[in-house]
Amino acid sequence: MGNLAALVEYDGTRFSGFQVQSADKGPTVQGALEAAITRVAGRPEQPIRIEAAGRTDAGVHASGQVINFRTDARHSPDVWQRALNALLPDDVAVRAVAGVPEGFRSRYSALSRSYEYGILIAAVRAPLRERFRWRVPATLDLAAMRDAARRTLGEHDFGAFGSSPSGGHTVRTMLSADVAVPGTGAPGTGAPDEVVCRFEANAFLTGMVRRLVGTLVLVGQGRLSVAQFGDILSAAEKGHAGVPAPACGLCLVRVRYPAPLLAWGHGGS
Amino acid sequence: MGNLAALVEYDGTRFSGFQVQSADKGPTVQGALEAAITRVAGRPEQPIRIEAAGRTDAGVHASGQVINFRTDARHSPDVWQRALNALLPDDVAVRAVAGVPEGFRSRYSALSRSYEYGILIAAVRAPLRERFRWRVPATLDLAAMRDAARRTLGEHDFGAFGSSPSGGHTVRTMLSADVAVPGTGAPGTGAPDEVVCRFEANAFLTGMVRRLVGTLVLVGQGRLSVAQFGDILSAAEKGHAGVPAPACGLCLVRVRYPAPLLAWGHGGS
Repeated sequence: MGNLAALVEYDGTRFSGFQVQSADKGPTVQGALEAAITRVAGRPEQPIRIEAAGRTDAGVHASGQVINFRTDARHSPDVWQRALNALLPDDVAVRAVAGVPEGFRSRYSALSRSYEYGILIAAVRAPLRERFRWRVPATLDLAAMRDAARRTLGEHDFGAFGSSPSGGHTVRTMLSADVAVPGTGAPGTGAPDEVVCRFEANAFLTGMVRRLVGTLVLVGQGRLSVAQFGDILSAAEKGHAGVPAPACGLCLVRVRYPAPLLAWGHGGS
Repeated sequence: MGNLAALVEYDGTRFSGFQVQSADKGPTVQGALEAAITRVAGRPEQPIRIEAAGRTDAGVHASGQVINFRTDARHSPDVWQRALNALLPDDVAVRAVAGVPEGFRSRYSALSRSYEYGILIAAVRAPLRERFRWRVPATLDLAAMRDAARRTLGEHDFGAFGSSPSGGHTVRTMLSADVAVPGTGAPGTGAPDEVVCRFEANAFLTGMVRRLVGTLVLVGQGRLSVAQFGDILSAAEKGHAGVPAPACGLCLVRVRYPAPLLAWGHGGS
């Protein structure tokens, strides 16, 4: 009867990824959302299934995941949001709910996904700052990392950096790629010890952002040149890239759709 | 033989506070530190006891806690730091170690303690930003909160906001007090939805910062005037202040000592 989309934020630390696994491998974000949505819909005998724009891995976070689901329940989007936030665990929240056209599918209607990967440059462990970042002990050549990141712009076979979840081809289009130092906002805090790698692409391969970041850090450490990074990209062969960066630093921050399909109300972004 | 000080950072979320309790009430930061220090010292039959500048409550964090302990072990400060960080749980880290004069005591030698309390102004739960902040749903009058905070400057009987851990008097000297909006560093991110309350005092009563913040938020919400806040402070009577703000937003960020007593090497602040 109705097709609803939700903008979802989660701390992925304790989850075995977004997607419900065939065997029981621990809690998933999808499982938490489907349980809450089914309960709000009010027909336990008809479990509601959701679809997501990005199937994030175990330990990966999201501030802008988008899901959609179909339901007969006639709650307003605002009631859906409040009820879901009351039922969901503390580490999952619904930032917005919107009615969407019948044909909208969070996964297939998406124009692009944006991920951010946080790096902390610090020789010593930093418990208050490591939950959502990868700690790298030595300083990084950010200019070289930025040059290498920009080599990924445009359409490439990204086979060096991941595999297609469906076993299909590995060509993707990178729409933006940057390595930036976010301002800390605190004057006089000294060295820029935080780095954010940002990528927007039409779609990503499994493990792609984490392998890109792992390889960019090799460039930042001087263990790979920008040209060698370009060669790895061009060769598009598995096993040539660096090891994937840890899941904890990765966050799905935004999914874009054609404007008429999805307009979040108050609270979305 | 030697007196050593350590600068300690911890995520207090899973701890039952800093201090080891008489009855076993769950893990403490002190317990984790003493176990690691005793192991590095190498004489299990002589457990090493530590003293801390601030006895943070359950769930309270620290980026600049200072402890000291006495040991016969002749490791260099650098070896102590590396060994402790290898043994400590992920949510506790030693940022620096320094030899200190025999008479140095992290608690009694301290000139002042500085705490920061983080508030997130957001109507909807935000799992990626709430671990270290108190989420308050409505906008706050920050100018009024700042005015009220500044009433606390100087020497006052803070009996309205806490009790002395030793049952002694409740007079303390507030050296600085402010309510600020930290820059997010991201241009165009819109409304300032994060607020930091900062306090530096010679010493704090038990629960004092959390009750101060809880009461300042009542001022920010217009439920108390700045003058009424001043009256609560002057009356110095228990039970007149607001309820304590949640522990998760509070962090002990710095402890100051007379310069000759404690000079952190590389890594301290």
